[in-house]
Amino acid sequence: MERPRHQGMAKNTYMRWRLPLVCLLWEVAMIVLFGVFVRFSPEADAHWEEEKREMNLTSDIENDFYFRYPSFQDVHVMIFVGFGFLMTFLKRYGFGAVGFNFLLAAFGIQWALLMQGWFHSFKSGKILIGVENLINADFCVGSVCIAFGAILGKTSPIQLLVMTLFQVTLFAVNEYILLNLLHVKDAGGSMTIHTFGAYFGLTVTRILYRPNLEQCKDKQGSVYHSDLFAMIGTLYLWMYWPSFNSAISDHGDAQHRAAINTYCSLAACVLTTMAFSSMLQKKGKLDMVHIQNATLAGGVAVGTSAEMMLTPYGSLIVGFICGIVSTVGYVYLTPFLESRLHIQDTCGIHNLHAMPGLIGGIVGAITAAAATEDVYGKEGFIKAFDFTGAYQTRTPSVQGGFQAAGIVVSLLIAFAGGALVGAILKLPIWGDAAAENCFEDDIYWEVPEDEESDAYHMHNPDKPASP
Amino acid sequence: MERPRHQGMAKNTYMRWRLPLVCLLWEVAMIVLFGVFVRFSPEADAHWEEEKREMNLTSDIENDFYFRYPSFQDVHVMIFVGFGFLMTFLKRYGFGAVGFNFLLAAFGIQWALLMQGWFHSFKSGKILIGVENLINADFCVGSVCIAFGAILGKTSPIQLLVMTLFQVTLFAVNEYILLNLLHVKDAGGSMTIHTFGAYFGLTVTRILYRPNLEQCKDKQGSVYHSDLFAMIGTLYLWMYWPSFNSAISDHGDAQHRAAINTYCSLAACVLTTMAFSSMLQKKGKLDMVHIQNATLAGGVAVGTSAEMMLTPYGSLIVGFICGIVSTVGYVYLTPFLESRLHIQDTCGIHNLHAMPGLIGGIVGAITAAAATEDVYGKEGFIKAFDFTGAYQTRTPSVQGGFQAAGIVVSLLIAFAGGALVGAILKLPIWGDAAAENCFEDDIYWEVPEDEESDAYHMHNPDKPASP
Amino acid sequence: MERPRHQGMAKNTYMRWRLPLVCLLWEVAMIVLFGVFVRFSPEADAHWEEEKREMNLTSDIENDFYFRYPSFQDVHVMIFVGFGFLMTFLKRYGFGAVGFNFLLAAFGIQWALLMQGWFHSFKSGKILIGVENLINADFCVGSVCIAFGAILGKTSPIQLLVMTLFQVTLFAVNEYILLNLLHVKDAGGSMTIHTFGAYFGLTVTRILYRPNLEQCKDKQGSVYHSDLFAMIGTLYLWMYWPSFNSAISDHGDAQHRAAINTYCSLAACVLTTMAFSSMLQKKGKLDMVHIQNATLAGGVAVGTSAEMMLTPYGSLIVGFICGIVSTVGYVYLTPFLESRLHIQDTCGIHNLHAMPGLIGGIVGAITAAAATEDVYGKEGFIKAFDFTGAYQTRTPSVQGGFQAAGIVVSLLIAFAGGALVGAILKLPIWGDAAAENCFEDDIYWEVPEDEESDAYHMHNPDKPASP
Repeated sequence: MERPRHQGMAKNTYMRWRLPLVCLLWEVAMIVLFGVFVRFSPEADAHWEEEKREMNLTSDIENDFYFRYPSFQDVHVMIFVGFGFLMTFLKRYGFGAVGFNFLLAAFGIQWALLMQGWFHSFKSGKILIGVENLINADFCVGSVCIAFGAILGKTSPIQLLVMTLFQVTLFAVNEYILLNLLHVKDAGGSMTIHTFGAYFGLTVTRILYRPNLEQCKDKQGSVYHSDLFAMIGTLYLWMYWPSFNSAISDHGDAQHRAAINTYCSLAACVLTTMAFSSMLQKKGKLDMVHIQNATLAGGVAVGTSAEMMLTPYGSLIVGFICGIVSTVGYVYLTPFLESRLHIQDTCGIHNLHAMPGLIGGIVGAITAAAATEDVYGKEGFIKAFDFTGAYQTRTPSVQGGFQAAGIVVSLLIAFAGGALVGAILKLPIWGDAAAENCFEDDIYWEVPEDEESDAYHMHNPDKPASP
Repeated sequence: MERPRHQGMAKNTYMRWRLPLVCLLWEVAMIVLFGVFVRFSPEADAHWEEEKREMNLTSDIENDFYFRYPSFQDVHVMIFVGFGFLMTFLKRYGFGAVGFNFLLAAFGIQWALLMQGWFHSFKSGKILIGVENLINADFCVGSVCIAFGAILGKTSPIQLLVMTLFQVTLFAVNEYILLNLLHVKDAGGSMTIHTFGAYFGLTVTRILYRPNLEQCKDKQGSVYHSDLFAMIGTLYLWMYWPSFNSAISDHGDAQHRAAINTYCSLAACVLTTMAFSSMLQKKGKLDMVHIQNATLAGGVAVGTSAEMMLTPYGSLIVGFICGIVSTVGYVYLTPFLESRLHIQDTCGIHNLHAMPGLIGGIVGAITAAAATEDVYGKEGFIKAFDFTGAYQTRTPSVQGGFQAAGIVVSLLIAFAGGALVGAILKLPIWGDAAAENCFEDDIYWEVPEDEESDAYHMHNPDKPASP
Repeated sequence: MERPRHQGMAKNTYMRWRLPLVCLLWEVAMIVLFGVFVRFSPEADAHWEEEKREMNLTSDIENDFYFRYPSFQDVHVMIFVGFGFLMTFLKRYGFGAVGFNFLLAAFGIQWALLMQGWFHSFKSGKILIGVENLINADFCVGSVCIAFGAILGKTSPIQLLVMTLFQVTLFAVNEYILLNLLHVKDAGGSMTIHTFGAYFGLTVTRILYRPNLEQCKDKQGSVYHSDLFAMIGTLYLWMYWPSFNSAISDHGDAQHRAAINTYCSLAACVLTTMAFSSMLQKKGKLDMVHIQNATLAGGVAVGTSAEMMLTPYGSLIVGFICGIVSTVGYVYLTPFLESRLHIQDTCGIHNLHAMPGLIGGIVGAITAAAATEDVYGKEGFIKAFDFTGAYQTRTPSVQGGFQAAGIVVSLLIAFAGGALVGAILKLPIWGDAAAENCFEDDIYWEVPEDEESDAYHMHNPDKPASP
């Protein structure tokens, strides 16, 4: 069981010039593009006083900032602490989980502001950004964080940055097709964020398949405290998900409703996750992996429909089902995907984002198709689905059809994009680690020589302590 | 010192069918009841546009969502991260602390939406829910989290769910008596949440008294990192408590004032807690147990009066006293309660919630009795105490009397309810662990085979490492 | 290598009477001063209904509470969790980091409410406080938390309280000179908070220079999990910094713009920090110290200019530069300062706050000097710089000059104040630990006898396990 790891490190994973080069060049590109294109939206511009008069607003509180900023901050926490810490469950990959998530998200939000800006906020040659753009950028990056979950521990930071660049681009294209061409509703992103992000990530990890990964099976597990760190991520995602699903909904009732629906769905999801976690295990004990992940499926699955009149009991039903589907997925499907389809899904994003995302898309299509003026009120009906202008004759059932089409488009772009990006990431120039060094921070990080680490080495006598 | 623990585990604590059954059945019941009863409030319903016209509102920003949602999210964090992590201080019960708190709170908020809804939001056969209901549900569950603190480590998850079912029910009854029949003010819940929750929990733990608990005295302590995890809980409770006490106060000055009073009280409380923690220890060192808990007593103790004109210096005085009372309680009263009264209070909720809750009720009664039109202004006086309709002739001193009566009612229902529920939980069907297995996650959780755990076993040579 | 540590502990660091005395006396002083001076602002007072009529406000939502409370809570989290956990990176000083930060901040906010109140909110003999005062008090304490970073692990809690008392006082004086006499803009506090706080702290640590500190070099490092705890602090500071810089800006566009600028600057800063962290290390690995700290420099450096029309690309440039400056500072400057100038800067605040703070002041001066009516609009220009009353003839370039003067004043007061306070803290009465006991919790805290601690001792055979 000899391991030529120092050789591998010296040869392949040396980041000293490659990572700085990518970071600096890309950041310079961002500055140039921002300089050319990005300006403040009227609500963030010093001309706001004039804007206010024009729009006939009587108070500063009508600024979109006050409608959305608290939700934005919650979403921000979900992306950086939520996703970051959720992935710290691995015993020796906490730095990579939090740190690389930090890196890719910080780059991704800038690129997303541009990509989404060109599609949605482009006016007379400039992208005008406000708080809603910040939320959308965070959303877009959320889909990258999801994909990161599939390849966690197996890629170099450069690969992650490359993936972010492409995935954000594809996300913006997919989002444009859905929201603008198909005129689909997807405020919480069941389709655009979760379905797209998860199947994209699963395709990438399939293409990056590593046959010898069982070599480091011992490092794929958690330790006691790493599971508690991961629970910080879980709980922040769980608590703030109502803000996520309501963050860019219409002002007023839509935001209010989206928060309530999500809250209900998530609550139900916890109960069925606990039930199936215990039931599917011989000893009847609860499994932290399920609690950390499947409890969140309810939030994913109402991403499309939360702002619709799903009703609280409808939300409970969705959450109920998703807790089951997700937990069953962790127990039976993840091992199957790995052994048969060679999809190595470190965090189980298939169970947390892919399946619940699909369910969310379908629930959204059904909820839209079932909408009536009776339930929504005449004005509410038009406002909820934005049946104005070119769409004023669209009926709920047609809308339902377009919603369903949105799922298909998201899947197609995810598979095609994931295949392309996977192929790019397979090039031998990005500095990824050898299979036996996966899930280990000390390839890319200065790791403190600590007692725990010594204890760890003690139990792995074949691995020499670092010099 | 032989331990027949594997036998105990195999026999009693097997959750595989019982826990799933309870979770699934109860969740189905929730779905049915929500389906029959729960609908959106007008502010979350798609008919909001019509509502807005009727209520003569000019802007969506007048939706209650924008008055209360940020506070709601802070309260939500307190319940799930605050209480959850506060209880992770035990060295080997972190999964149970965070995980069971998550389970009971997720169930409890659903049941609370129903129970509180029937009492307070029931209109033409339907419970109409909005963001204020979500906050109240979190509040209600807060009282269960408090009671959980007393029995932490000694009960099965089923017992916790059973307790939640009953406690939420009794909470709603008590709350109805106080708010509606006695017309008492208690926005931050000194009486309804803390006094009720704590004495309820203490009664339950008294009835569940375990004579041999000193067997696992070694597991009742903390380790270095578990104390830091607990500080996450402490700080989030401490920081967000101003949101807790102001979350359901009247719009405008009342919310504003409640936040300021709570902020002041909490600040003072930290100083006296530190002072007495050092003073009451021979070596003069600070004790993490006090810092984690007694620093919060100031928030509990202004729960009733925060929205009144307590004034900043009044708040400082309350916080000053409660830091002392609570710390002294940890040093002298908790051991006394355990040895003499057989009240085994794992987290010391008597010091953090029971005594400060009582003080809070009394401070509220005094502050109400001392109210004058001079201090509040004519309109402010009526608005602050809702002296309208049937209550328009009530005087401050009468109000003070009713406030005091509220304390007594809360205590009575807590004792009676706690006795009843304690008796139910004593039935030998709920799968609780034997005394020697208390405070240990691996009874109900899959615990990773980690190095720390090995290290732990190393120091407990009589305990064999799990296979 | 004999260590007479128990003697040292028994003699010097015994806190039992000194710490309680200081805490209790000072808290009593706070109560008295609050009683004499502090009352609610009109927006938090029960007379609000009358106030509303007078100010012609139509809705409670116009209460300043709803403009600022969400930002306040974010700032609050930054002070207590952000700074507290950022400093837990030391392997055996987590209790001190979080606990002493808690203590000094809780005292500091009270004293800051008074000091800032006398200068800014004093009306007919009373200080009238509202949510903006709470934010300003947190800001003021932020500068103390920064200074704490320089002396972390080397001072007693009493020294920290003494430093807080003086530093808050000097902060308020400096702030008054800048904001009121020089009429300088500094909403995010590049000058008043960061430059002042950092150079104050650096001066204090210079005066408290400990020649033998290399004795405990082994305790100045981190362990794996302590680095993850520190990342909690980092991320909360990073995520909420847009709230920090926008919290007290003018309602409407200014708050909106400040948040966007800060978001952009911080994002760019992450990329250059990662680049230089890898580049400056032979093995090309990332260093957690840089990620934990230098990623935040971008927030510091737009503290003055964020509410101005810095523009998103301007913010990116500032963040770009500061990530580099800060990381380079950690690698080259901190060792230099320690070895040559005898400035022992535990957390490297020179790199995170001092240099970026100076840059922030300069960027603010330039941005102000470059302001034109064309960019801001006629009304926006006057509103942004408050060119009204006595200042209505001030030009942008003059404003730029005053901004620059603000930097100089802040530096002067920081150096002079730091020297004075350092001299006071050098008195041998405050109970600080001997050099060999620095960076160790068990001098001032009851530390659990845990396995990790044993493991730690195992590797330090010269240190006997505590009895």
